[in-house]
Amino acid sequence: MDKWQQRNRPLRLERRFEFENYQATRDFLDRLGDHNEKANRFPDISFGSTYVNITLRPEEDSNIQESDFQFAKEIDGLLD
Amino acid sequence: MDKWQQRNRPLRLERRFEFENYQATRDFLDRLGDHNEKANRFPDISFGSTYVNITLRPEEDSNIQESDFQFAKEIDGLLD
Repeated sequence: MDKWQQRNRPLRLERRFEFENYQATRDFLDRLGDHNEKANRFPDISFGSTYVNITLRPEEDSNIQESDFQFAKEIDGLLD
Repeated sequence: MDKWQQRNRPLRLERRFEFENYQATRDFLDRLGDHNEKANRFPDISFGSTYVNITLRPEEDSNIQESDFQFAKEIDGLLD
């Protein structure tokens, strides 16, 4: 979990993923889209040809909970 | 072309697209990905469940050319 960074105002978890090339980036984005649809949870995502940045707001505004870390961990699992 | 805004430092064109729901957003992102691959040009894109923001840097750093406006117009065409 050490690569997700917690930031404040607004409270959120952020992680940047880097890829070798655009195709690898797009493959990850496709898996991420499928995953988010299944979870019905849509973080803010920004990307270019070889990177993806994900900003995950907690389900409850006031604090980051176990379910938020779990969702982040599921995203990490999409890298494999 | 009036919905693309030119900004400076760095010089770029930006447009925000809004959608009714996540599925419409994702359909647009899929068409955009296909289009960018064909054009071999990869603007920075950020999105959430119902919006897509595109940041297009000019092919030549020093000025925005006709080919940049053309590329932006092609992206607009993906809305139909």
